[in-house]
Amino acid sequence: MDHFEWVVIGGGPAGFESALNLAGRGMKVAIVEKRELGGVCLNRGCIPTKVMISAAKRIERLKSTKRYGISMAEASFSYPTLKRHQERVVKGLRKGLEQRIREAGITIIDGEANLSGQGLVVVTDNNGRKTCSLTFEKVVIASGTAPIIPSPWMGVEGVVSSEDFWTLDDLPRDILIVGGGAIGCEYASALSSLGYNITLVEQMDRVLFTEEPETSEAVSRSLRNGGVRLLTGKRINDIKKTETGLMIEAGSEFFSSSLVVCCMGRVREKAPAGVDLTGVASLKLDDRTWIAGDIAPGPKLAHKAAYDADIIVDHALGRHTEPRYDNIPMAVFTSPEVGRAGLTEEEAKARFEVESRTMNLGQMGKAAADSVSRGFLKIVIDSKSRRVLGMTIVGHEASELSGYASLVLHNEMTVDDLGRIVFPHPTLGEIFRETAREFK
Amino acid sequence: MDHFEWVVIGGGPAGFESALNLAGRGMKVAIVEKRELGGVCLNRGCIPTKVMISAAKRIERLKSTKRYGISMAEASFSYPTLKRHQERVVKGLRKGLEQRIREAGITIIDGEANLSGQGLVVVTDNNGRKTCSLTFEKVVIASGTAPIIPSPWMGVEGVVSSEDFWTLDDLPRDILIVGGGAIGCEYASALSSLGYNITLVEQMDRVLFTEEPETSEAVSRSLRNGGVRLLTGKRINDIKKTETGLMIEAGSEFFSSSLVVCCMGRVREKAPAGVDLTGVASLKLDDRTWIAGDIAPGPKLAHKAAYDADIIVDHALGRHTEPRYDNIPMAVFTSPEVGRAGLTEEEAKARFEVESRTMNLGQMGKAAADSVSRGFLKIVIDSKSRRVLGMTIVGHEASELSGYASLVLHNEMTVDDLGRIVFPHPTLGEIFRETAREFK
Repeated sequence: MDHFEWVVIGGGPAGFESALNLAGRGMKVAIVEKRELGGVCLNRGCIPTKVMISAAKRIERLKSTKRYGISMAEASFSYPTLKRHQERVVKGLRKGLEQRIREAGITIIDGEANLSGQGLVVVTDNNGRKTCSLTFEKVVIASGTAPIIPSPWMGVEGVVSSEDFWTLDDLPRDILIVGGGAIGCEYASALSSLGYNITLVEQMDRVLFTEEPETSEAVSRSLRNGGVRLLTGKRINDIKKTETGLMIEAGSEFFSSSLVVCCMGRVREKAPAGVDLTGVASLKLDDRTWIAGDIAPGPKLAHKAAYDADIIVDHALGRHTEPRYDNIPMAVFTSPEVGRAGLTEEEAKARFEVESRTMNLGQMGKAAADSVSRGFLKIVIDSKSRRVLGMTIVGHEASELSGYASLVLHNEMTVDDLGRIVFPHPTLGEIFRETAREFK
Repeated sequence: MDHFEWVVIGGGPAGFESALNLAGRGMKVAIVEKRELGGVCLNRGCIPTKVMISAAKRIERLKSTKRYGISMAEASFSYPTLKRHQERVVKGLRKGLEQRIREAGITIIDGEANLSGQGLVVVTDNNGRKTCSLTFEKVVIASGTAPIIPSPWMGVEGVVSSEDFWTLDDLPRDILIVGGGAIGCEYASALSSLGYNITLVEQMDRVLFTEEPETSEAVSRSLRNGGVRLLTGKRINDIKKTETGLMIEAGSEFFSSSLVVCCMGRVREKAPAGVDLTGVASLKLDDRTWIAGDIAPGPKLAHKAAYDADIIVDHALGRHTEPRYDNIPMAVFTSPEVGRAGLTEEEAKARFEVESRTMNLGQMGKAAADSVSRGFLKIVIDSKSRRVLGMTIVGHEASELSGYASLVLHNEMTVDDLGRIVFPHPTLGEIFRETAREFK
């Protein structure tokens, strides 16, 4: 029976980052994954979505080519071609990841991990048959989450989760998306740009309801302008398979669709046998057991999972740092994109005396030159210390710009300090300086 | 005769930022400009270039549409249409700027300013006729720079400066660009993407020779791949007008072109009469006279001009800050773009014991998903303190990402600290974290 200093359960971002960092510090590490290395993020989440969104962005950009003197016949779109490219991209990245893991000297084990008493992992195959056992000193459990599908809809033909969506080789013209969170909004935005007829149903009174109201408004307006039928404050009561497709009942309304994609949040995957995660509020379960990623506290985001890995490695090296999730940035890859780090104004008001300023991206020279005027920056500060508490940016490449918010928060900058930072001209980033200077 | 607390000479970024900030602090301000408000940057520099580059970027993006399932007939391009759009954009921004200046209560005066003894400005028109006089307590001189054209080429038909380029209503197929600095590389990159036959001649042995060698290599490769005939280490001896166009002699080679665009650097505009700028090394000339922008020390960049304005306003308010130009970022809007802040490795080696790490953008998941793999990040640190001394990023939207370098340098971050910053996944910005972690 092989012995490891660390066994990592789960090959997603929390798992592989933990494994790579621990192995990089000279430790003997095994990683156990029951599906593919890279987890949901690489195989059925972030990456495939971004390939689809890249296609959508290209089509979006075509809309403003004419004024730049570029003429072309209308473009046509083939989903199967995109799908093949998406698979190539995912496969390429997975191969690269696998190579990095092997080169780090990490043992990769296929199968499902079960904790069996002190320091013992029993690995089983798809049929529950034991394939091997490992002993360990410490373990990281990063078993991840799965998408929610309400049980009455499970198995209904044409109803898929946001993950199973990627098993489809082609798409029908009419698609209903349930859930206006980050994933639902991304799917609706990209698919409508690609020419599909999209209905998006959200039970709250606005999409992206954990974000600033201005964010929800900007994304809703853009979805509607792009042809999405957006229904908020509506709950789906029933989905029935009929001869022609699916019949959906929402409140007192009925409508039909060929495909329903559920983007209704995520729940913890079944924890490895032998682990109880009920009520867990920290990364450390006991002296030998850590959890990381989606199953741990904090936002369910790939980059937060990598952050958890850092905390665990710190502890492994005797540095006891506490995780701080309040500066973790988030991004929604709609058109326009959304980025945020830190508190929304409403969250901030509960704890501070706050001030905020909002500036439209259209005021930036770069936005005019590049026809990317949609969107805004909102900065929320503590009026007393003038420290920046949170920033939301909506607009072209906002996902890239949201890292600025992380940096500003990490360095505990005041808004006055931010107003003195020099950004290159002409860039959209100048809006950070300009908005900061609006706080008199 | 009107009296002002501050008179600002020049309506470019240094001038209008000074005027707006001083007026915003309640001071009575006049701004004198002999051409258009916004200066070279808005009217004949950054902004018109970025409109052309936006067209070029759109065409560049079309090259990778097929793999995303998007098919279209080949695009055609009309320069006059682009030109009209560019003029609309510039006019719109200029109107907005003029409105901001008026709303700030600043008096705008057309004409050329001459300093005539203590606290007196005499304004003259194009014919040198006096139009008005102003008295002032303090003055900011921000009279800017003009592009260099060697005197034998002046007035040769078909030879234009990078600024006069914008007076052309259409372009010939063959264009020769002289000078492989930021401006020359931007013109060559954009125009070749738009389908023109471009020759670029640079007398140094590499383009962008003040940048990292890796930067020059990446930009050269990309220019050549885009069809640019790139001649380095070559000086143009002569340009002659012939029956069919221009005959250019470079070293022992001869070639013809219909248009020569000189991007050979910039020299100070004639200083206002009454001012001697010889050997000036600070923003303050005397108790009542300040200089700012291109005529002052430091890099000749629009955002550096705005930074000078901040320093002057600080002094006006009794805060004596010294300008620090070493963190001012720069950006080159080629394809791929270039961004840098702080020292290059060579510059750093002259003053520190340094280490550097370089990572290719292609290693980022986002680069694979969005087909934007070209480029790299290079981080240079002081081995002793581990403080980041400089960062160069080459790639998609590198101009936006170079603001990160400013923020990191401004906050005097160590590379270890940078390696703990969480960037949203998947973004290109993750490369900052990843590269920082390569310093073991």
